[in-house]
Amino acid sequence: MTDHPRDACGVVGIYGVDGAASLIALSLHALQHRGQESAGVVTSCDGVFHCHKGMGLVSAVFARGEAENLPGAIGIGHVRYSTAGGSNLVNAQPLVGRYIHGQAALAHNGTLIAAKRLTYTLGATGAFFQTDADSEIFLHQLAQEQASTEDEIGQVLTRVGPAFSLVLLFADRLIAARDPYGFRPLVLGKLRDGYVAASESCAFDQIGAAFLREIEPGEMVICSSGACRSFFFCPPGHPHARCLLELIYFARPDSLVFGEMPHLFRQRSGRALAAEHPAEADIVVAIPDSGMSAAMGYAEAAGLPLERGLIRNHYVGRSFIAPGQEARAAAVRMKHNVVREVVRGKRVVLVDDSLIRGTTTDALGRELRNAGAREVHLRIACPPTRHPCVYGVNFPRREELLAHNRSLEEIRSHLHMDSLGYLSLEGITGLFSESSSFCTACWSGRYPILDEEIPL
Amino acid sequence: MTDHPRDACGVVGIYGVDGAASLIALSLHALQHRGQESAGVVTSCDGVFHCHKGMGLVSAVFARGEAENLPGAIGIGHVRYSTAGGSNLVNAQPLVGRYIHGQAALAHNGTLIAAKRLTYTLGATGAFFQTDADSEIFLHQLAQEQASTEDEIGQVLTRVGPAFSLVLLFADRLIAARDPYGFRPLVLGKLRDGYVAASESCAFDQIGAAFLREIEPGEMVICSSGACRSFFFCPPGHPHARCLLELIYFARPDSLVFGEMPHLFRQRSGRALAAEHPAEADIVVAIPDSGMSAAMGYAEAAGLPLERGLIRNHYVGRSFIAPGQEARAAAVRMKHNVVREVVRGKRVVLVDDSLIRGTTTDALGRELRNAGAREVHLRIACPPTRHPCVYGVNFPRREELLAHNRSLEEIRSHLHMDSLGYLSLEGITGLFSESSSFCTACWSGRYPILDEEIPL
Amino acid sequence: MTDHPRDACGVVGIYGVDGAASLIALSLHALQHRGQESAGVVTSCDGVFHCHKGMGLVSAVFARGEAENLPGAIGIGHVRYSTAGGSNLVNAQPLVGRYIHGQAALAHNGTLIAAKRLTYTLGATGAFFQTDADSEIFLHQLAQEQASTEDEIGQVLTRVGPAFSLVLLFADRLIAARDPYGFRPLVLGKLRDGYVAASESCAFDQIGAAFLREIEPGEMVICSSGACRSFFFCPPGHPHARCLLELIYFARPDSLVFGEMPHLFRQRSGRALAAEHPAEADIVVAIPDSGMSAAMGYAEAAGLPLERGLIRNHYVGRSFIAPGQEARAAAVRMKHNVVREVVRGKRVVLVDDSLIRGTTTDALGRELRNAGAREVHLRIACPPTRHPCVYGVNFPRREELLAHNRSLEEIRSHLHMDSLGYLSLEGITGLFSESSSFCTACWSGRYPILDEEIPL
Amino acid sequence: MTDHPRDACGVVGIYGVDGAASLIALSLHALQHRGQESAGVVTSCDGVFHCHKGMGLVSAVFARGEAENLPGAIGIGHVRYSTAGGSNLVNAQPLVGRYIHGQAALAHNGTLIAAKRLTYTLGATGAFFQTDADSEIFLHQLAQEQASTEDEIGQVLTRVGPAFSLVLLFADRLIAARDPYGFRPLVLGKLRDGYVAASESCAFDQIGAAFLREIEPGEMVICSSGACRSFFFCPPGHPHARCLLELIYFARPDSLVFGEMPHLFRQRSGRALAAEHPAEADIVVAIPDSGMSAAMGYAEAAGLPLERGLIRNHYVGRSFIAPGQEARAAAVRMKHNVVREVVRGKRVVLVDDSLIRGTTTDALGRELRNAGAREVHLRIACPPTRHPCVYGVNFPRREELLAHNRSLEEIRSHLHMDSLGYLSLEGITGLFSESSSFCTACWSGRYPILDEEIPL
Repeated sequence: MTDHPRDACGVVGIYGVDGAASLIALSLHALQHRGQESAGVVTSCDGVFHCHKGMGLVSAVFARGEAENLPGAIGIGHVRYSTAGGSNLVNAQPLVGRYIHGQAALAHNGTLIAAKRLTYTLGATGAFFQTDADSEIFLHQLAQEQASTEDEIGQVLTRVGPAFSLVLLFADRLIAARDPYGFRPLVLGKLRDGYVAASESCAFDQIGAAFLREIEPGEMVICSSGACRSFFFCPPGHPHARCLLELIYFARPDSLVFGEMPHLFRQRSGRALAAEHPAEADIVVAIPDSGMSAAMGYAEAAGLPLERGLIRNHYVGRSFIAPGQEARAAAVRMKHNVVREVVRGKRVVLVDDSLIRGTTTDALGRELRNAGAREVHLRIACPPTRHPCVYGVNFPRREELLAHNRSLEEIRSHLHMDSLGYLSLEGITGLFSESSSFCTACWSGRYPILDEEIPL
Repeated sequence: MTDHPRDACGVVGIYGVDGAASLIALSLHALQHRGQESAGVVTSCDGVFHCHKGMGLVSAVFARGEAENLPGAIGIGHVRYSTAGGSNLVNAQPLVGRYIHGQAALAHNGTLIAAKRLTYTLGATGAFFQTDADSEIFLHQLAQEQASTEDEIGQVLTRVGPAFSLVLLFADRLIAARDPYGFRPLVLGKLRDGYVAASESCAFDQIGAAFLREIEPGEMVICSSGACRSFFFCPPGHPHARCLLELIYFARPDSLVFGEMPHLFRQRSGRALAAEHPAEADIVVAIPDSGMSAAMGYAEAAGLPLERGLIRNHYVGRSFIAPGQEARAAAVRMKHNVVREVVRGKRVVLVDDSLIRGTTTDALGRELRNAGAREVHLRIACPPTRHPCVYGVNFPRREELLAHNRSLEEIRSHLHMDSLGYLSLEGITGLFSESSSFCTACWSGRYPILDEEIPL
Repeated sequence: MTDHPRDACGVVGIYGVDGAASLIALSLHALQHRGQESAGVVTSCDGVFHCHKGMGLVSAVFARGEAENLPGAIGIGHVRYSTAGGSNLVNAQPLVGRYIHGQAALAHNGTLIAAKRLTYTLGATGAFFQTDADSEIFLHQLAQEQASTEDEIGQVLTRVGPAFSLVLLFADRLIAARDPYGFRPLVLGKLRDGYVAASESCAFDQIGAAFLREIEPGEMVICSSGACRSFFFCPPGHPHARCLLELIYFARPDSLVFGEMPHLFRQRSGRALAAEHPAEADIVVAIPDSGMSAAMGYAEAAGLPLERGLIRNHYVGRSFIAPGQEARAAAVRMKHNVVREVVRGKRVVLVDDSLIRGTTTDALGRELRNAGAREVHLRIACPPTRHPCVYGVNFPRREELLAHNRSLEEIRSHLHMDSLGYLSLEGITGLFSESSSFCTACWSGRYPILDEEIPL
Repeated sequence: MTDHPRDACGVVGIYGVDGAASLIALSLHALQHRGQESAGVVTSCDGVFHCHKGMGLVSAVFARGEAENLPGAIGIGHVRYSTAGGSNLVNAQPLVGRYIHGQAALAHNGTLIAAKRLTYTLGATGAFFQTDADSEIFLHQLAQEQASTEDEIGQVLTRVGPAFSLVLLFADRLIAARDPYGFRPLVLGKLRDGYVAASESCAFDQIGAAFLREIEPGEMVICSSGACRSFFFCPPGHPHARCLLELIYFARPDSLVFGEMPHLFRQRSGRALAAEHPAEADIVVAIPDSGMSAAMGYAEAAGLPLERGLIRNHYVGRSFIAPGQEARAAAVRMKHNVVREVVRGKRVVLVDDSLIRGTTTDALGRELRNAGAREVHLRIACPPTRHPCVYGVNFPRREELLAHNRSLEEIRSHLHMDSLGYLSLEGITGLFSESSSFCTACWSGRYPILDEEIPL
């Protein structure tokens, strides 16, 4: 998928390693694909918090040694993709402040389904909100309940409810926690004598930390007094609902999330797609980079050659294209270019990981034809996306979803494709032994939990 | 005085004038002398707040039409001089947020003497503080008390206590209020069909608004539903304690504060100084620009010519001088240069409005002598500053005050002056008919109110 | 190859299309891989030149509509990769100025082998050089000879000598020219009623221009009076020496340069490499993105699966890594990460397009082994690089070339590879029908032309 | 005068003092009033030039230790006020480059009256101009003549002709020279074992250098081999034409230029003005800061009190005022505010140093009346400015000069003043013993030299 909906964030926490800030900044770099709007790091040193945040990429925000200037062996970091209306430094995380038990800072990934209700309830007991981020709710709930012990913090997390994977920083304590459904990923690692928590394991590889394990849904990991403990703040047997889109396109192909390596999962999905929707074609072409792994699986299973029919230009920054005539086409071309000699005269299977709005796919189909492709058969390695996500994936509005209220034939004709195939819901859940533990709401409309189910 | 202690801020509020943000930014320009660290404007339009803040001068923060982009006919603004440790965008005002009754924003001038105690009390009821500014206390108290009516807001102001002159913005209401002692100034003006409140009247001149009157100590002015009302939130007969330093050096010479024009007041103080401390001398020289008005009065009363023996370079920005050898002298010269031909062979009366640390005065004395002045007689148009201020003037620590624990003779000898004269406490209060209404704590040590006297 | 030596630049010229500057900026975007240090555009409108240049990526330099502000239907543009010592705005191209025949501007790709001698000669006749760029020589030679007609300009080009592919802008004339050896590429296209010249054809695709043909070595194309003419400024039959590195790694895989599409050429070279240097292995892994096309060819010819064993992170900006401990490894990991599950227990053929310094390759080999690869067999799709380039490729110094003064076995052992194979010189030239028309100096040491052979 | 025409620049050169760049940057600070558009420093160290230039104030361009990074004990610096059309980094000085005898750099104050002719002549012998600054002519002439010895450089200066005061930097030589008419100032000082040249002596005060003497019209000072020599490159008895505007308003009041201290000169001119044009009035008010010295002289001679009726706001940066309604008045008020209490009911003598366009004076007159002044009598301490300057003062076009084609009565009525008096030409030249040595072209129309009189 080329115009990805966005997950809200990536988080990192480090405990017990000198120069924590630089290591956090490095790890954020590896999580940059989870959010490019802002980046920030907070450390704690001798009871004092040190913070640097800014708009833009990690490499820009920490370009002049800002991380080196944040002392301490404990800290947290965050990269953010802004949701509508809030592209503003005030919303950059980590959020930092002070309550009755001292300083606290938070980095949060996920969307709180009870945000509206909690904002009202907290307001009624005197909270003054200073950002647009729902993440601020955690801090007010913490202050309101004067929570400090692990049990108390566990109650705060239960009260706030999903979706969250987060790290919390106190003066000399780091907490990493994941909501009981486990919508968003969170993993635990070891670096020298200390510990690291992060959204994805690629953050560990970046700094030479060893991967230990997933932090489980409903688990809270506490690093303090030089050690690392853990307990569950939800009852045993709580249902899980991991977000499959993490495996399908959010997570870096080389990460370990939900116990899977996304690249291999995507290859498997491509093979299943070829089995479900074969095509009479000459070559397989991936929409780079997102469709590459699935295309490899498809080509292998279909016995067709995988060719580089589309090239992606990685220098694309913020586009400076003026609106209007030819601008859209230019914007698409700025990111992808068709390799004419490869596709000319060929029947092409075009593979992508998913299909949301479809505007870029539409444009690429046209470019392929202009370059001489005889036929274009679109294959998508997940089911049609028809429902909004309320757990942290920043989808466009329901009406902007290509598959909303459209039949498959309507979608195919809208995109001017010669044929179209989506991997079925059964196909994708069949890739796991234990399929019931995933969330499929955006395809099936079956939401694992809604606001009114969260206890007060 | 050349290294002024700093007042915390300048504030502006406008109600009922289209294009409020641009007018606020313009007025802030006229208040720039009250704070150069950060500047900000918030407006309300159709129930939505619009905000722009930044570090630096008003002309830099609003250099590219940022004010024009903030819609609405109602808003507030702030310029800030950071106190120690808090030179940070997070502390820039106006503070903006949301509580149970909707959005609210605050611009505050003054220091809260009960800040520590209030922070603790609010924390104990669940407040989460997100800035280092004591001003945030107002917003938490407001949220805690769910204050919305004028009476309720008056109670919040009473509970928080001095020192404050502030403007509060709600969706369709502007409030301007001054603590019952009236430490810091606040004035009311009229612009077209609307109203303006500001720290000093020069803000009105800048935008063509008419000066109406001082907002009284303990008075709250409310602009809403197209009209402007006022009431007192403190009992009648409450003692006043206006800060004399406002007249002596904070306020712009052309403003109206406390019913006085600072330039004329300073001229009068210079005349009184000449009467108290005459000098056998040839010429009077002001330390520009701060000592100019007092020097005019001194010269006139003493019958001596006022000469331009010191020139001030107004292009000085943040100094780029490396620390170390000759750097201090270079820094002084960057700001002031002696006009040799004027002072050579002359007995000079050097006049300034006040004397805090004395480092620059010391250096200027030496420069005058190097340039050939035969004698230098220092005259200061206020009493020796020996006690810290707790109401909003950012003095150095007690030990850094030149007059702290030093006799007059010790000060004179420390500064290498041929003679030294300070205007006496009686001399300065004698300039008013009603002298008891002023605060003289930094000279006399008599503090009008201390923390424990504020009711909970 | 992962630490590419750098070609000096990319150039674009547009004639006869309204809004030329925006189109040039767009095309420069597509040429961004040829230089990221600075970018610039000059247009001519009603006899006046308009110019904008800046350091950094095209998207940064033209981020705020700067291109839209440059009027005119004729102009040139440039992206530059700075050679040592000259990372400075003064060296950013296009170079712009004025001589006896009016304004002139230049965008140049290549290095002038006679630069030192020409600088001396021009200095002796009164030239004053204001940049560090050898490109300035063209403008002084032009001014010195008062060259204005095509013949005169042809003589200037002959006098200056290789290596150059350039565009020259005059008030109402655009000239594109390539040195008689044709070291660097230059292509001609058509856009609406006008013409476009550029380093690579991907610049045409970006703006919807049609590819017409290569501009031939020794050819000068002149656009003026609404038409486009061409003539040769060198004798017929002049030997050619196209730079093979353009095909091997400079040019974008989807461009047309020297009549070849680099992606297909690289695939062919991978097949030839597999034939020359087969390997007992389980999988083929490309060093992304540079080795991808060659690895596809190798895998296909070897009958081995091509796997994604290395992932490239495309968010890498300027590194903010502090020097010292672990920094190097972190820098490598910031760009490439090993996909453990893919390589664990496997015998890996690692394919890249070339090998210059070898530092990154060395590190990647180690990372692959750490991730569990049983064997790593390195295959390079060109011969060992042993000699510096004097025609525009910014190689490291001779001593820094990995293959300089090292036997194959020494290189293999230095990189800790299980085996090593380079495509032979015969192998690579055998990919063409007309192999004598290419430059192979960096491998063979046979330089087609040296300074002393250029006539004065 | 409040909207000063602008002199082109300030220059500094230092020879033989370690850390020259920091000292030059400091001195430029003291010359900031001569140009705020750009600033730059070049040093020479071991035969290599080091340069930093930027747009804006010295304190901004050298804000982050840039000067400390330029090594060497010899260097030059420049502050520039851009003339029309050339506000561009490419025109920032010092100009730096290389000719047959090595590197050379130039900082120039003045306008070359033969610029057009010289540009043509140099172009005809092959010069390629890369800036819009006429100063570039010196460097091309130098390169053209291959000038290196002092005699040769003297010939270059003669050939180029007035107006110039300049410093030239070579690898190990500093040259300071002033044209034979001496239009613009240039002074020589001593610092430790080295030498300093600068536009004004206040640059010496800033760095603790001792004032030695004026560099004479037609004199060239050469610092090399540890010593300082001088010779005249023009015949003895050459007429002089120092620019009186330097004394009247360009130079800082505390500088020494042309052997005079501007503050004292302006005071004398104010006394002469009072004698020529007395007024029936109550108070004298200066337009600050420009009219202050003259007003002091006027008040003293007239026996009237000098009052602070106008306050200047020194925080004014680039105005952010949107064009249109009330914007002009707001812009005036942003810079000057009337002190109502001072002027109310008074007959005011308003004194300024000069009057060019008159727009601000007009506005101030209106503001004074609005504030209650009964009468306003304008007194200008120089003659009516009726002719453009061709020697370096950036006047508006002839038609924009208020006094052009207007009688005194027309000017008075245009400005709505109750009376108007200019100091006469005889009055101002009578302030000197040797009046024939000054240029009075902008008042008298008698130009000391025009283009055609410069020899080729």
